[in-house]
Amino acid sequence: MTDQAPTVSLATLNTLAAADLVQRIGNVYEHAPWVAANAADVRPFATVDALFETLKSAVREASPAERMALLRGHPDLAGKAARAGALTAESSGEQTSAGFHRLNDAYRAKFAFPFIICVRRHTKESILTSFEDRLGHTQEAEQAMALAEIDRIAALRLDALVTGEGRLKIAGRLSTHVLDTHGGIPAAGIAVALRELAASGASRLVASAVTNADGRTDAPLIANRPVPIGRYELTFSVGDYFARRGVGLADPPFFGIVPIRFAVAEAEGHYHVPLLVTPWSYATYRGS
Amino acid sequence: MTDQAPTVSLATLNTLAAADLVQRIGNVYEHAPWVAANAADVRPFATVDALFETLKSAVREASPAERMALLRGHPDLAGKAARAGALTAESSGEQTSAGFHRLNDAYRAKFAFPFIICVRRHTKESILTSFEDRLGHTQEAEQAMALAEIDRIAALRLDALVTGEGRLKIAGRLSTHVLDTHGGIPAAGIAVALRELAASGASRLVASAVTNADGRTDAPLIANRPVPIGRYELTFSVGDYFARRGVGLADPPFFGIVPIRFAVAEAEGHYHVPLLVTPWSYATYRGS
Amino acid sequence: MTDQAPTVSLATLNTLAAADLVQRIGNVYEHAPWVAANAADVRPFATVDALFETLKSAVREASPAERMALLRGHPDLAGKAARAGALTAESSGEQTSAGFHRLNDAYRAKFAFPFIICVRRHTKESILTSFEDRLGHTQEAEQAMALAEIDRIAALRLDALVTGEGRLKIAGRLSTHVLDTHGGIPAAGIAVALRELAASGASRLVASAVTNADGRTDAPLIANRPVPIGRYELTFSVGDYFARRGVGLADPPFFGIVPIRFAVAEAEGHYHVPLLVTPWSYATYRGS
Amino acid sequence: MTDQAPTVSLATLNTLAAADLVQRIGNVYEHAPWVAANAADVRPFATVDALFETLKSAVREASPAERMALLRGHPDLAGKAARAGALTAESSGEQTSAGFHRLNDAYRAKFAFPFIICVRRHTKESILTSFEDRLGHTQEAEQAMALAEIDRIAALRLDALVTGEGRLKIAGRLSTHVLDTHGGIPAAGIAVALRELAASGASRLVASAVTNADGRTDAPLIANRPVPIGRYELTFSVGDYFARRGVGLADPPFFGIVPIRFAVAEAEGHYHVPLLVTPWSYATYRGS
Repeated sequence: MTDQAPTVSLATLNTLAAADLVQRIGNVYEHAPWVAANAADVRPFATVDALFETLKSAVREASPAERMALLRGHPDLAGKAARAGALTAESSGEQTSAGFHRLNDAYRAKFAFPFIICVRRHTKESILTSFEDRLGHTQEAEQAMALAEIDRIAALRLDALVTGEGRLKIAGRLSTHVLDTHGGIPAAGIAVALRELAASGASRLVASAVTNADGRTDAPLIANRPVPIGRYELTFSVGDYFARRGVGLADPPFFGIVPIRFAVAEAEGHYHVPLLVTPWSYATYRGS
Repeated sequence: MTDQAPTVSLATLNTLAAADLVQRIGNVYEHAPWVAANAADVRPFATVDALFETLKSAVREASPAERMALLRGHPDLAGKAARAGALTAESSGEQTSAGFHRLNDAYRAKFAFPFIICVRRHTKESILTSFEDRLGHTQEAEQAMALAEIDRIAALRLDALVTGEGRLKIAGRLSTHVLDTHGGIPAAGIAVALRELAASGASRLVASAVTNADGRTDAPLIANRPVPIGRYELTFSVGDYFARRGVGLADPPFFGIVPIRFAVAEAEGHYHVPLLVTPWSYATYRGS
Repeated sequence: MTDQAPTVSLATLNTLAAADLVQRIGNVYEHAPWVAANAADVRPFATVDALFETLKSAVREASPAERMALLRGHPDLAGKAARAGALTAESSGEQTSAGFHRLNDAYRAKFAFPFIICVRRHTKESILTSFEDRLGHTQEAEQAMALAEIDRIAALRLDALVTGEGRLKIAGRLSTHVLDTHGGIPAAGIAVALRELAASGASRLVASAVTNADGRTDAPLIANRPVPIGRYELTFSVGDYFARRGVGLADPPFFGIVPIRFAVAEAEGHYHVPLLVTPWSYATYRGS
Repeated sequence: MTDQAPTVSLATLNTLAAADLVQRIGNVYEHAPWVAANAADVRPFATVDALFETLKSAVREASPAERMALLRGHPDLAGKAARAGALTAESSGEQTSAGFHRLNDAYRAKFAFPFIICVRRHTKESILTSFEDRLGHTQEAEQAMALAEIDRIAALRLDALVTGEGRLKIAGRLSTHVLDTHGGIPAAGIAVALRELAASGASRLVASAVTNADGRTDAPLIANRPVPIGRYELTFSVGDYFARRGVGLADPPFFGIVPIRFAVAEAEGHYHVPLLVTPWSYATYRGS
């Protein structure tokens, strides 16, 4: 798999024989080593970003037939997903799976190429939403959309393969911070969980952590990768926290587990979702 | 059923023949018309509350044997619930039901009287929690607790039967209010739902409403009755609201449905749970 | 003075001889009894509001010369204010007073009628701001503006004189509410002061109160009259409150007196400015 | 002045002749070079903090007469302040100055040594408050207090003179952050001012800045030094900000300048005072 391939420095890439360069990064655009071959001629690249711009241009400047071949050469999401179990996992159920195959068939029938989406930038729910939206596109608009998704897939592969100056902006971040505004202190020791939500009501645990002395988690809940577009729920065990602090509480406490549901729209965005909390009030906001 | 019995004014009660008084309110203490009969002798009562205090005193001053008979005469919650389907509904599942019957048997074995609780002041979850807690009591403490619950049941029955000055404080209130702090206006047209939560993760819709021009619901979500002790989730459809107002939002909007989970500890309390909201922030608190 | 004149019911007005009606409400439009005389012919009025609409129409339908006479007949604000001491009080200083006289002279020179403004709807600061803004108007726009102010003055006079159905909307309201979100209770016993601010940095105490058991003041800080357009500062003695409650505080407490500065733009608006406060945090918003 | 003396590294101090060491840091304890001389014998020091502990111990272990001489040798605050103009500046007025001299005389009369306080850890207001409080002390308690203040003065001097590992914790920090929760973005370009408040109502500008793209000021408002104990007001020009962003506002805007008044109790504390703001609401809290 591309992602496990050994990394190579940009400096090295700049000096490799063309064939070796293609061997190293030819799979960044799937089944289309000609994209990388094209770039070999215009070396050296000062930054990874400049290399990526060249790869993208090669695709943009290719003939319509070449571009269509690129689209058709892409593996089918349904096939990939079935192998990976990602979209047909028990939790999403038979119905989701059936819906997905129906969409897939309708899409191929309309556009004559497979549905392509950069899966690492999406949750299951947003893949299905995109699928439905994109089925309504014209052939022209959808070709552009599919090529843009291929670029996004390529960016993630290139970032994983090539080290050097001018890294690509492929990562987002999701973090939190809990302030105890009853005590005027960071809230330490609060159990935090992040779940991805699905329209079906199902949810999947993405990350869990306990706040440190500064009221933050030691590492962001998501970092160094896209934050999949979709809906999430953060939960904070504030009832236990205030009980440990010895604050007089109602029984049961007015707030036990505080849930915050929010959506991510930009996979490369920075989402900071703090909680300001007392036993009787709380506030949250998109921070920075 | 007691609750459907015709109401009678306190003035009328004050003038009825003793036997007629007992006929009217003798069932306030279940299978114990002697409690009401006792009160007939000390009429008139200036307030419903004074009448209730007299009924309670009659029980307190009765002999240990009479008090035990009162406890034993109470219908079994398991039996009542089974008839009403309240605790064995499909949603709570076989397991809850089995757990309940196990507790019931253990309770009777330990205390020799049925588990008595004022069901209208509780959710299923808090009934089970109380059940488990109370199983740990001594015989003496649990007799006092069970008698207190009988008084609470009596208060609700008396309030439903007798009109007049000095009504009993048997009602709590649960209300909300949504302020749009993005526009500086009450948030009108927001769909609000109140659900009762259970430890199993199940939930039951208790009330739903749409906010009016003042950002409030036309009537409190719960009023004129106890607010059952337990855990709740209020949800607010804020994404739809801001979309209708034409505010520029992310896609999907950062906040779609805002959930607020809180617990009620005092069935006769006033719980006001407002939401201050923008497309990017919100706050809630126990208000008044 | 108009404001101390005896009130008369709309029912009575509907039946008075025309001359008596003029005697009663002829001064609602200053030095222009013909406005009221006009209304006498189209009685009866079902509501005070309908009467006022008729008075306003009489002015709108009058000849340009009559309308100009109405404007010129109005007393000079500078003269009135000087008599009342309102604009030349020591606190506003010589400079304000001088500025005011300069504006007054410029205004008369440009428009040939005195500067007319409904003083009860304004603070000193907003009168000066309006004065400066309006000096930039065309003759036509400023005549319309001055007539609108005369209508506002008339509305306040009519409301004070005539009782009955369909009262005029001349009153605004300014209120507050303090919630202690540290304790989850209304904050009782908090000293609240409302001051009107001036550009000079001067301030004038408008109202002061202490919050009651519900965290509100017994009466709104301003009610039953316009809320003068301008800038205000509300202060809340929260440090003393939390000290009395025995909450552990820093020394000195992090928040002692909390000031909230805000502006009123609509004299007939309802301004509710609550405070949600702990010893370490607070929030405020325009409520409803 | 001590503060302008050239710095010396701890490594160098460890190797200097004793007399040279005293020459370098002998003035850390004013008029008491014996304190430093004492430390010369127990070198080397691994950290600045260890050096300071040794200096403090020398004072603690000195005879009562030596300690009293140290207290008496300290310059009079009134004299120092008069030379610096710090406490008799026009803004604080004749009255403050007179009050100060009265306190000074009373203090000397009671304790027979001058009032000593680490001025850089205090505002004018907190100096006067301390002065009054400390006048009520017993001789024994006040000697301990005055010696503790001498240690604090020494710590600031030592920190300014000696570089090396294990620096002393003499600095606090005061910072802010403005989030625009109307737009879900950091509020950039907001003018921020920090003023020190005095009981007299006077205020003194301490720092001013404009928020950057992250809603923060480029540098903390106070850093690398103690945050003087006392009361402060932060102001934020939010009305101008929202007007620039083109948000529809009332005229005048509901919030123009937002003031936050708070007190600093620990000169070495970290005070983060953020503002979450829309045109119609705001919140602040002690953050971290």
